[in-house]
Amino acid sequence: MTSNGLSRRREKEIRSLSKKKYRDRLGEMMVEGMRSVESAVNAGAHIREVLVTAEAYVTAREFLGGTGASVVEVSRAEIERIASVETSQGIVAVVSIEPVDPEALISMQRIVAFDGIRDPGNAGTLIRTAAWFGVDAVVTAAGTVDLYNPKVVRSAMGGLWDVALVPVDELAARLETLRGAGFSLYAADLDGTTAARWVPNDPSVLVFGSEAHGISERIGKMIDERIQIPGRPKHGAVESLNVAVAGGIVLYEWTRGRKSR
Amino acid sequence: MTSNGLSRRREKEIRSLSKKKYRDRLGEMMVEGMRSVESAVNAGAHIREVLVTAEAYVTAREFLGGTGASVVEVSRAEIERIASVETSQGIVAVVSIEPVDPEALISMQRIVAFDGIRDPGNAGTLIRTAAWFGVDAVVTAAGTVDLYNPKVVRSAMGGLWDVALVPVDELAARLETLRGAGFSLYAADLDGTTAARWVPNDPSVLVFGSEAHGISERIGKMIDERIQIPGRPKHGAVESLNVAVAGGIVLYEWTRGRKSR
Repeated sequence: MTSNGLSRRREKEIRSLSKKKYRDRLGEMMVEGMRSVESAVNAGAHIREVLVTAEAYVTAREFLGGTGASVVEVSRAEIERIASVETSQGIVAVVSIEPVDPEALISMQRIVAFDGIRDPGNAGTLIRTAAWFGVDAVVTAAGTVDLYNPKVVRSAMGGLWDVALVPVDELAARLETLRGAGFSLYAADLDGTTAARWVPNDPSVLVFGSEAHGISERIGKMIDERIQIPGRPKHGAVESLNVAVAGGIVLYEWTRGRKSR
Repeated sequence: MTSNGLSRRREKEIRSLSKKKYRDRLGEMMVEGMRSVESAVNAGAHIREVLVTAEAYVTAREFLGGTGASVVEVSRAEIERIASVETSQGIVAVVSIEPVDPEALISMQRIVAFDGIRDPGNAGTLIRTAAWFGVDAVVTAAGTVDLYNPKVVRSAMGGLWDVALVPVDELAARLETLRGAGFSLYAADLDGTTAARWVPNDPSVLVFGSEAHGISERIGKMIDERIQIPGRPKHGAVESLNVAVAGGIVLYEWTRGRKSR
């Protein structure tokens, strides 16, 4: 362990990574917890630094071996100050943010787009699910939750390393380009084609709108087909599915292979 | 509004409903938030009392009209002391717990069983999803999260009133009886039949095991078919789906109607 300790200045810098402004400025994000750091290491993420308590190092040394990242021993008090979670597992990695060039999207098959998702837990769970089903990329609009927010990273459970993350300034313009290049545009919605009868084309983009307001107006006009998951609650007391569950079912139908109508 | 105020004794009693012991003793649970209370009212739940601030009453009076429940005006300070959420919407209903007799299960078609689910958010979201897809009942074992826990009630988003809730002392024995009566037993698992190829029988029970340990040993031996949702993450960084998302997909496949293998 490169146990040269953590300078006050660097501790302050790392703590600032809980805010988007400083993540953008430093080009770094925090990855917390044993399994998440292990996923990042195994996926070949560029790890700048691993902060770990002596206790946590007993477990972490196994996967930190060949990384070449500097490993800094910190005290329980230091890790608690840095961690965004209430009870830290004693390990935080500082990882380079390496967004994928939006120009790369055109050669992909299946792209998820976030058009206003606000809740970091929903965003992270959708990334995790998209990763599980082999989606190529997740594109986010400005005004949507930041993909490198610590809560998104936590809920994504390693999914960040399986999909390309592509923040774009103008989501509508980008989708227009993809549509012009032959992509079909789908949206998860409250009405439209029943998910089980949906026959998706390749290449395509699946858009998730905001939890409160749905798809934005300009993007709404470009959608080729809206996909719904019909319900039949016995007494109509429940009015909808949870956003991450509904998204999971649509992602499942989108990627589960060919079927006939 | 029956604005006779809230006695200290009754306030203390209602606050105690955040604990299972007192819910069992009093036979009451708390339902919090405008939409959840409205769902309970519309579903015909037995509402003993509605505590509401003057501000919240402006909205709530519309659906509280014909209930006959006693409506008690409380101060902001009182509702904050009673509510289990950090920021209360100013309305809490005290509702009778009316568990369904386990003997009724035998005449149902589709039953979900919780065998050790621990997280109240997962349990509530599974209830909400089961309700959306028209499942008849949710049965829980002792040792599984209490279905009337305020966090379960909140995540269920009204789903409590669409399914019969059936806590049982001996889940294994109950499932054995149902199996003897012709029910098929399925389990959501990490391997087994691919969800898309699964042809479920009626009547049947779908079992969800604990997040950490899966299905318990005795119940595991009774399962007729295990159902998995295969993944193909590009770099294998993500190792599984979120429990509520995986459960949602299995519930979707279970209830979406006949298909051929």
